[in-house]
Amino acid sequence: MPRTLPTRYAVSLKIDASRYEILDQRALPSAEHWRDVRSVAAMLDAIRTLTVRGAPLLGVSASLCLAYRAQAGDTPAQLREAAGVLRAARPTAVNLHAALDAMVGALDAQGPEGLIDAAFRWFDDDVAMSEALAEHGAALLDDGDGVITHCNTGALATVGVGTALGVIARAHAQGKRLHVWVDETRPLLQGARLTTWELRRLGIPHTLITDSMAALVLREGLAAKAMVGADRVSRNGDAANKVGTYGLAVQCHFHGARFYVVAPSTTYDGRCASGRDIEIEARDPDEVRGFVSPSTALRWAPAEVAVMNPAFDVTPARLIDALVFEQGVFAPGAVAAGLGGVLPPAR
Amino acid sequence: MPRTLPTRYAVSLKIDASRYEILDQRALPSAEHWRDVRSVAAMLDAIRTLTVRGAPLLGVSASLCLAYRAQAGDTPAQLREAAGVLRAARPTAVNLHAALDAMVGALDAQGPEGLIDAAFRWFDDDVAMSEALAEHGAALLDDGDGVITHCNTGALATVGVGTALGVIARAHAQGKRLHVWVDETRPLLQGARLTTWELRRLGIPHTLITDSMAALVLREGLAAKAMVGADRVSRNGDAANKVGTYGLAVQCHFHGARFYVVAPSTTYDGRCASGRDIEIEARDPDEVRGFVSPSTALRWAPAEVAVMNPAFDVTPARLIDALVFEQGVFAPGAVAAGLGGVLPPAR
Repeated sequence: MPRTLPTRYAVSLKIDASRYEILDQRALPSAEHWRDVRSVAAMLDAIRTLTVRGAPLLGVSASLCLAYRAQAGDTPAQLREAAGVLRAARPTAVNLHAALDAMVGALDAQGPEGLIDAAFRWFDDDVAMSEALAEHGAALLDDGDGVITHCNTGALATVGVGTALGVIARAHAQGKRLHVWVDETRPLLQGARLTTWELRRLGIPHTLITDSMAALVLREGLAAKAMVGADRVSRNGDAANKVGTYGLAVQCHFHGARFYVVAPSTTYDGRCASGRDIEIEARDPDEVRGFVSPSTALRWAPAEVAVMNPAFDVTPARLIDALVFEQGVFAPGAVAAGLGGVLPPAR
Repeated sequence: MPRTLPTRYAVSLKIDASRYEILDQRALPSAEHWRDVRSVAAMLDAIRTLTVRGAPLLGVSASLCLAYRAQAGDTPAQLREAAGVLRAARPTAVNLHAALDAMVGALDAQGPEGLIDAAFRWFDDDVAMSEALAEHGAALLDDGDGVITHCNTGALATVGVGTALGVIARAHAQGKRLHVWVDETRPLLQGARLTTWELRRLGIPHTLITDSMAALVLREGLAAKAMVGADRVSRNGDAANKVGTYGLAVQCHFHGARFYVVAPSTTYDGRCASGRDIEIEARDPDEVRGFVSPSTALRWAPAEVAVMNPAFDVTPARLIDALVFEQGVFAPGAVAAGLGGVLPPAR
């Protein structure tokens, strides 16, 4: 039987030898519920229902579930099957896929012990990745800036300080006075529920807006920069991210505001030549017909109304001023050309 | 005592000698509740809570309330005071102000009888206005078009067929095959709740989207035209409308889609040189913190979070391809220059 697991605590999850819990992000900000995800079925359900979400966190949390199963004595065959099941839970989330591929590689090479090592290395790398993103990205923000955010990209999206919101937090910690304009991010309202919760914890001034008000914020000059995450980046520097990101990029372009994408290099997918190759998952229509959470399912639209509900959209490279990876700040055109040896090669 | 009132029924209200009821638009689409608005206090509450909304309908419904009060024997002094109270309920809604000014003018000139005549003439003019808008605007839509709408601009916004949605309904009735992409229109969700309800009644194919998906719909070529209403139009052709309209206009501009504004001439305000002169009302922050309806007050954001909640935004004339008034279809620049004798003069 493999050795017992080390202990790791983050804002978003807690793991040690006898427990593995994730913070239920659907219940925030009104309640902080922790969910037991020691079983693959529980982890799968948590991923599918967005109880756990955030591109980097998905990879870490699924990997830690496999580590817990390895400690519990699951066979390599069971672990391999579990990796396949978890991998398929979110088709667009490339770092979920990258993490689980790495876990299977470690399992094949070194058995369950190797998988445990790999999972905790993935955790520690995520913390280091967040730190590097924050450090590189903070240089893009100046004292007095207004910044628009979309979705949630903070400590709740990683096991470190976050991606785009980690950058904002770092710039704030450096003493720069910032004001954050928080897109509520329909349909699942990660901005309204999660980013506001994080900004309050961090003590950073912020104002919540509906997604449709971002244009007004930019026109009034209340913000001149946008900072968002990414779920997948293609070779030409196109970036898939939470639906609504593309529209925000168009607004920034029109209003002459800077548009920055902050993402771990695990988000880079060398197999995709451009954003057109990125598969976009369609989600439950009821998310658009109303508001869905663990405690509430409220529908305000007619029950039978046809709905479009892509989880993501793709922002073309030409609307992106810079991409921040843990290796540094890059122009979109440099992603494939300049980073071949630094970012993970095409898989 | 003035003579008894004539009878008028519309989708949005019912009035006769013994009753005056409006359809509660906050309860749609799940329930059709009619509210008694025979008292000024009830009418004022209905306007303030958006139980009744829609720029043209506000003017008609407030005027009919005064007519009901006139029949009930209220004195000219009471009627004049009521007009002032109702007039102040929505600062941006210029046709509410225009209607009530006309009622006070009729009252002053011809007493309560004159006010009743003026109110029912305002109703009949609104029906005729909708017809004229529909007829002029329908020529802008072609067989096979995809059209984006924002907020609600149909029979629920007027006592006729509507403004922008009336145009779509007329083009559909002419046999043109259309698909309508319905912006849900946060925060109050008039698109999700009201426009979908109307389109279903009309049998027009439609798909509900979050406001942030409009950019995607335009980029994918699913719609190449947008048709919206207006709450106020300034001399230079700038148009104030439900918040989010400006962002939609920017998206249309970027994607090469046509952007049309459909509004009654009572929306024209010659006192405003440009959109910068249009007063924008700020609404209750709780509307952005969650979902507010008569049966539900659901908050998903932190209770204390700072919020921006302007009811309207202003779309500059340069982003508008044409304005449809009951007099015809006009380029924005022609609104002041060419329509001086047709649109109401500066008040």
